[in-house]
Amino acid sequence: MSDLINLSLDQAYRLSSDVLTSNGFSEAHAQAIARTVTSGQADECHSHGLYRLLVCVKSMREGQVDPQALPTLSDRCAGIVAVDAHRGYSLLSFETALPVLVRKTRQIGVAAMVINNCYHFSALWPEIEALTAQGLAALALTPSHSWVAPAGGSKPVFGTNPIAFGWPRPGRDPFVFDFATSAIARGDIELHRRANSPLPEGCAIDSDGQPTTDALAALSGAMLTFGGHKGSALAAMVELLAGALINDMTSMESMAFDAGVGATPLHGELILAFDPQLFSNGKPEEGAQRAQALFDGIVQQGARLPSQRRYEARKRSKDAGIFLPKALYEDILKLLDR
Amino acid sequence: MSDLINLSLDQAYRLSSDVLTSNGFSEAHAQAIARTVTSGQADECHSHGLYRLLVCVKSMREGQVDPQALPTLSDRCAGIVAVDAHRGYSLLSFETALPVLVRKTRQIGVAAMVINNCYHFSALWPEIEALTAQGLAALALTPSHSWVAPAGGSKPVFGTNPIAFGWPRPGRDPFVFDFATSAIARGDIELHRRANSPLPEGCAIDSDGQPTTDALAALSGAMLTFGGHKGSALAAMVELLAGALINDMTSMESMAFDAGVGATPLHGELILAFDPQLFSNGKPEEGAQRAQALFDGIVQQGARLPSQRRYEARKRSKDAGIFLPKALYEDILKLLDR
Repeated sequence: MSDLINLSLDQAYRLSSDVLTSNGFSEAHAQAIARTVTSGQADECHSHGLYRLLVCVKSMREGQVDPQALPTLSDRCAGIVAVDAHRGYSLLSFETALPVLVRKTRQIGVAAMVINNCYHFSALWPEIEALTAQGLAALALTPSHSWVAPAGGSKPVFGTNPIAFGWPRPGRDPFVFDFATSAIARGDIELHRRANSPLPEGCAIDSDGQPTTDALAALSGAMLTFGGHKGSALAAMVELLAGALINDMTSMESMAFDAGVGATPLHGELILAFDPQLFSNGKPEEGAQRAQALFDGIVQQGARLPSQRRYEARKRSKDAGIFLPKALYEDILKLLDR
Repeated sequence: MSDLINLSLDQAYRLSSDVLTSNGFSEAHAQAIARTVTSGQADECHSHGLYRLLVCVKSMREGQVDPQALPTLSDRCAGIVAVDAHRGYSLLSFETALPVLVRKTRQIGVAAMVINNCYHFSALWPEIEALTAQGLAALALTPSHSWVAPAGGSKPVFGTNPIAFGWPRPGRDPFVFDFATSAIARGDIELHRRANSPLPEGCAIDSDGQPTTDALAALSGAMLTFGGHKGSALAAMVELLAGALINDMTSMESMAFDAGVGATPLHGELILAFDPQLFSNGKPEEGAQRAQALFDGIVQQGARLPSQRRYEARKRSKDAGIFLPKALYEDILKLLDR
């Protein structure tokens, strides 16, 4: 374990926040980002943990992220709260609009948060969990950069386009999933390239459209969606709801805008929230019982609910803190030397 | 072609409607169902065409479908219109609540239709297209009977749980997909059983939880979801949003309620609608252009948009009418002899 650095959650948060403020992020952005990467690390989602500080600072230095941008909120209509991130990272925008989304949802049953003009580098489950913690169900979608070919095609059109969903379970960990509609995460291809190891079958094609397990060939070709034409249809839905509907960039557009810099995508995000109280006509406890019977039916046969590994890691990290590879820790410390 | 019967769309509609009214369905139910099965036939979705009349009448005769049930509409709150189908088929409920859903969506941006207590046998795309025809995007979900095992498990918990989505394209066919979250349709397994042909790999497990391509073994075992744990997560989302959230039966519950009769599932449905005008902050034509660029990016590389085959069939059927196997036609005629 000598090549792992152990930090308490508080230390990890303060390190993250210090890295961000010393690189020019406003306190508000630094706190929102530090909270999210610390949560990712505590849940042992390493690719969404403190590693993201590197991506976050790189995208700010090389791209066009505004580290001081103040989100502006617009209460557009009864069902929609919109936030313009003004090319800041998405997280502060989400936090700014969250109370309005919660209030709207409780008033009218279903409501949407639209985030426009944001840079997005984070997992969606922290946002989903912020809504399940309020007793609401939630669905979140965002495009990315066009790396993924449609079913039956060979040229990238879609982003990795995650879909995340959560169902509140008062007194228990919520039911939450958050997955890319691509067959593999972009970051995993990078890891295979560095390790010079083959990709799983069915994840990617080369620039001639032929199936490949070579990470380098995949990076210059295209990724595939999960689940064939059904995954491809879902990836298109993400582009349409979290791009065209909210009049923000599709993955093709954000890729063109990036112009080869390799920064985090600039685009929008759509978050829907649902109030079980109003949808169940005042009987949410009956709906909760139906949900619990479903979860029991899954767990009692030895299958797992999504996010179980994250919740187990979270419990461990609460006491033991988080562990970072020494090399990563040192790379993060270097970001302090500005 | 001598074993095919050719009917005009109007003849197909009238035959369907006559079969239904002569079996005790009210005029309103008969018209709603006849419209939908005629559309399915015209789109050459044979399993959702006039064949469904057999299922529809069987479920009514053997199950507990009320063929005269009058849906009652409840304008629950600004974002939700709810309809109680009172154990009638879902389609009349949908038609009853559609104008309210459209009005709400245009007023507040996003709104939901909840159908409770309905028998459901139809594809979701006719409902999705009713909303795209109004210039709205739409998402529809419904559970079914518990035939499908969760990822990592071996016992059925989920229904075939379809997800359908549509995006309006004024002057063109809408972008619409409608797919089961199971790896194969329940009806397709039946067809393989009758033909004594093997199932595709990866669709089903036997009652010991072992992979099988034997249709009979699959029918007594469990179907699998498409796309592994991601498809399984989506199937759970359908149970939660279109079951627990709206306080209606999950697929396990509707299966238990059916008690072996083999009728169409009794449960609920959730339909969400989105107004591009409000979501785009008054610039829906810009969003439409982004969507069109996406569709061009898909089609120009030789890939297909979902539903293209249906739209091509629809054009053919408009002139040539529909074609039914003689045996099916005769089975349908027999339903008139009550």
